[in-house]
Amino acid sequence: GADVLPNGHYGTSIKLNWALDFNRGILLAHKMNGEPLRPDHGRPLRVVVPGQIGGRSVKWLKRLILTDSPSTNWYHINDNRLLPTMVSPEMASEDPKWWRDDRYAIFDLNVNSSVVYPENNEELVIASAPSTYTVKGYAYSGGGRRITRVEISLDKGRSWHLAHIDYAEDKYRNFEGDLFGGKVDMYWRETCFCWSFWSLDIPVSDLQASDAILVRAMDESLAVQPRDMYWSVLGMMNNPWFRVTITNENGRLKFEHPTHPTKTGGWMERVKKAGGDLANGYWGETVQGEAPAQQESAKEINMRREGLSRLIELQELKDHVSNGEPWFIVNGEVYDGTEFLRDHPGGAQSIISSAGMDVSEEFLAIHSETARIMMPGYHIGTLSTSALAVLQDNGLEEQNNSTEPRKTFLQSRYWSKTTLVRKKIVSSDSRIFTFELEHPKQTLGLPVGRHLMIKV
Amino acid sequence: GADVLPNGHYGTSIKLNWALDFNRGILLAHKMNGEPLRPDHGRPLRVVVPGQIGGRSVKWLKRLILTDSPSTNWYHINDNRLLPTMVSPEMASEDPKWWRDDRYAIFDLNVNSSVVYPENNEELVIASAPSTYTVKGYAYSGGGRRITRVEISLDKGRSWHLAHIDYAEDKYRNFEGDLFGGKVDMYWRETCFCWSFWSLDIPVSDLQASDAILVRAMDESLAVQPRDMYWSVLGMMNNPWFRVTITNENGRLKFEHPTHPTKTGGWMERVKKAGGDLANGYWGETVQGEAPAQQESAKEINMRREGLSRLIELQELKDHVSNGEPWFIVNGEVYDGTEFLRDHPGGAQSIISSAGMDVSEEFLAIHSETARIMMPGYHIGTLSTSALAVLQDNGLEEQNNSTEPRKTFLQSRYWSKTTLVRKKIVSSDSRIFTFELEHPKQTLGLPVGRHLMIKV
Repeated sequence: GADVLPNGHYGTSIKLNWALDFNRGILLAHKMNGEPLRPDHGRPLRVVVPGQIGGRSVKWLKRLILTDSPSTNWYHINDNRLLPTMVSPEMASEDPKWWRDDRYAIFDLNVNSSVVYPENNEELVIASAPSTYTVKGYAYSGGGRRITRVEISLDKGRSWHLAHIDYAEDKYRNFEGDLFGGKVDMYWRETCFCWSFWSLDIPVSDLQASDAILVRAMDESLAVQPRDMYWSVLGMMNNPWFRVTITNENGRLKFEHPTHPTKTGGWMERVKKAGGDLANGYWGETVQGEAPAQQESAKEINMRREGLSRLIELQELKDHVSNGEPWFIVNGEVYDGTEFLRDHPGGAQSIISSAGMDVSEEFLAIHSETARIMMPGYHIGTLSTSALAVLQDNGLEEQNNSTEPRKTFLQSRYWSKTTLVRKKIVSSDSRIFTFELEHPKQTLGLPVGRHLMIKV
Repeated sequence: GADVLPNGHYGTSIKLNWALDFNRGILLAHKMNGEPLRPDHGRPLRVVVPGQIGGRSVKWLKRLILTDSPSTNWYHINDNRLLPTMVSPEMASEDPKWWRDDRYAIFDLNVNSSVVYPENNEELVIASAPSTYTVKGYAYSGGGRRITRVEISLDKGRSWHLAHIDYAEDKYRNFEGDLFGGKVDMYWRETCFCWSFWSLDIPVSDLQASDAILVRAMDESLAVQPRDMYWSVLGMMNNPWFRVTITNENGRLKFEHPTHPTKTGGWMERVKKAGGDLANGYWGETVQGEAPAQQESAKEINMRREGLSRLIELQELKDHVSNGEPWFIVNGEVYDGTEFLRDHPGGAQSIISSAGMDVSEEFLAIHSETARIMMPGYHIGTLSTSALAVLQDNGLEEQNNSTEPRKTFLQSRYWSKTTLVRKKIVSSDSRIFTFELEHPKQTLGLPVGRHLMIKV
């Protein structure tokens, strides 16, 4: 790929026999749905490997290389791996052999299914509800394998109901004519790459009598979603039974997904806060006859080093912005990220870019408990109140106060003000916001494939 | 196939895109290991579909048919199906739609692994044992997918150890030269069709502290063996974690497999006899804090109809041998198999062949509890003592007592005596026994693909 990342260009590989296999339908795409490919989708040329994890579909394609062994690209080796479950973060970081064994590379997607309705936090008033509720969701598998059944349980997996499955993809097989300028040769291939949609009408009385809706799918290779999570270092490809809890409160059924898609919440957080063990084989709920779970959680994680009382002033912080020792601020405390540059799962660049900045919000939004527990090791002191005030006002680097207008609008190290001039409603869930630059000749300054942050 | 079975010639189908896929290596075989195919392996020509269930590899191939829909052959529809788990035997027998949905046809083998050592009933004397024991077994998957890991747990699946895997098949990839007259084009294909062999050295002290060895495998599509069994009507394709129990008795560790490969025994039978519930999610063992399992099993299944007192004499039995109402004898009781001819999973022929015979041994050896529970429905009376004596002596049909030697040695309806004249040791687990016919011109009388029974 033409994209430059902290550890070089992005690159990866797939097996030659997969690339040559017509059934897999691997393609080089320069258009999508009849329109030119958009820059963020890899314009001008992108590899598309249907049925495999997205990391194999290289964007901004520059080069195809035929080799007799797997890619040695940093991202091929260190990303998209499902290491064996007993490999701890320490083992993985100490011994490169775990990463270099290509058997642990993730290619095909695994069989998966999920509930969409009821949604997270959806409520159903029993008195006014119709007699049945239609539970709905999606299911897919990898490698072109068809989902052959989706099953729903209301009694912890003891018994199952068969859902109806709609294979939207099959409509393309039977379509006569041109589609976006090309024929679809799907019919004879019988391969399935897209989501299928399942649904099941469930009597509301059955929902009322149940504590959770469980869903699992099976594909044509007879792979079935496992009951429990397969834990692995990178945390990818989880496909345990999808579970929506049901709570009956004052005549309403309240449904909860495992997590909330964009914010905190969901039954996993609730169970965790109540001190439940999510790995107890019963989704953290108390098992009948089991000793009550220990109330050990719910305490705040301390990110400060015990007994440290060093006060850091503005000048000292400034001195560490560009000397290769990135100091950054979380909750008024100063951390030295130097030692962690090599091991940071998000790459060294994101720490380097934070040098001299108050990154409290970004840090807490992205990082897990495990990351927070590591923080005291990098804690070097507390920022003085006056320094913190300067930092929170306009950042460490003074903005350009000259009357000369800036050539580039976005600055990576401080916030820039802008005005919203137009809002266009595209569809039920999409809007186009148009913001004003400072002058007509100014460029935005956002490279392809990067994100910008907006604070309202 | 050229074989004639109770419901016509054997036939089945695979998908066209699979048949055309080089990666799948589907072939028409007339030789095996450089030797002509043996009659029992389908001489002169057999389809071989590696990575798929054996039922797709048609023997004695007569014809290949290209159709735009799956085969309508009786065996394609009614065999090798994995019906959804909630389909009961009654639902399956009443509604043909379950069988005609090709999504439930079994093609690819699913991921599986098994323990070979320790063997069932193997014992290890702790005092004289070396410090580690090497647990060994095999693992395979379907569709050419490589086994990517085999994991062993000694604590009910809470934690896992990684086993070493030997891919014997890979030796063929790297082999230079001819193999049985043909080149092996395995290298570029990277597909895996054979068993792999795993092993793990486990400290004997760890085995001593454990109640069972659990094994599971994962393949390159990230399919992992499920913890629990997927129940289905035909009972095929079971691949839950393989479990070998460990019992510490007087300084010896005793190992038990789920079942004994050829006779009764194994921990499943032990748990069942003790009244344990094999489907309780803990392999029927009593869970800590759980109410003790009900002692409901261990009673004999009654195969006689309640209150029936009809006594049947020899002549009446004789009258029902060839009139299309096959009466047969189990444990001195007479059963009328007429009503069950259509539904018998083993085919009508095996009931018809049993007409007028005492089939106690064969019946009890083959049939499950479920089958025995059905027997009172077909029970019509008790055979008189004198009739039973005649039957047990030499069968209902008198043997040919003339001096004229028989042209055909084997008779389907009674036992024939023969003398063992030679025993040749082929390998550690194979012997060739040679029996003498009555005269040189006699034929054996065993069609290809059928079994004979030997009583010593």
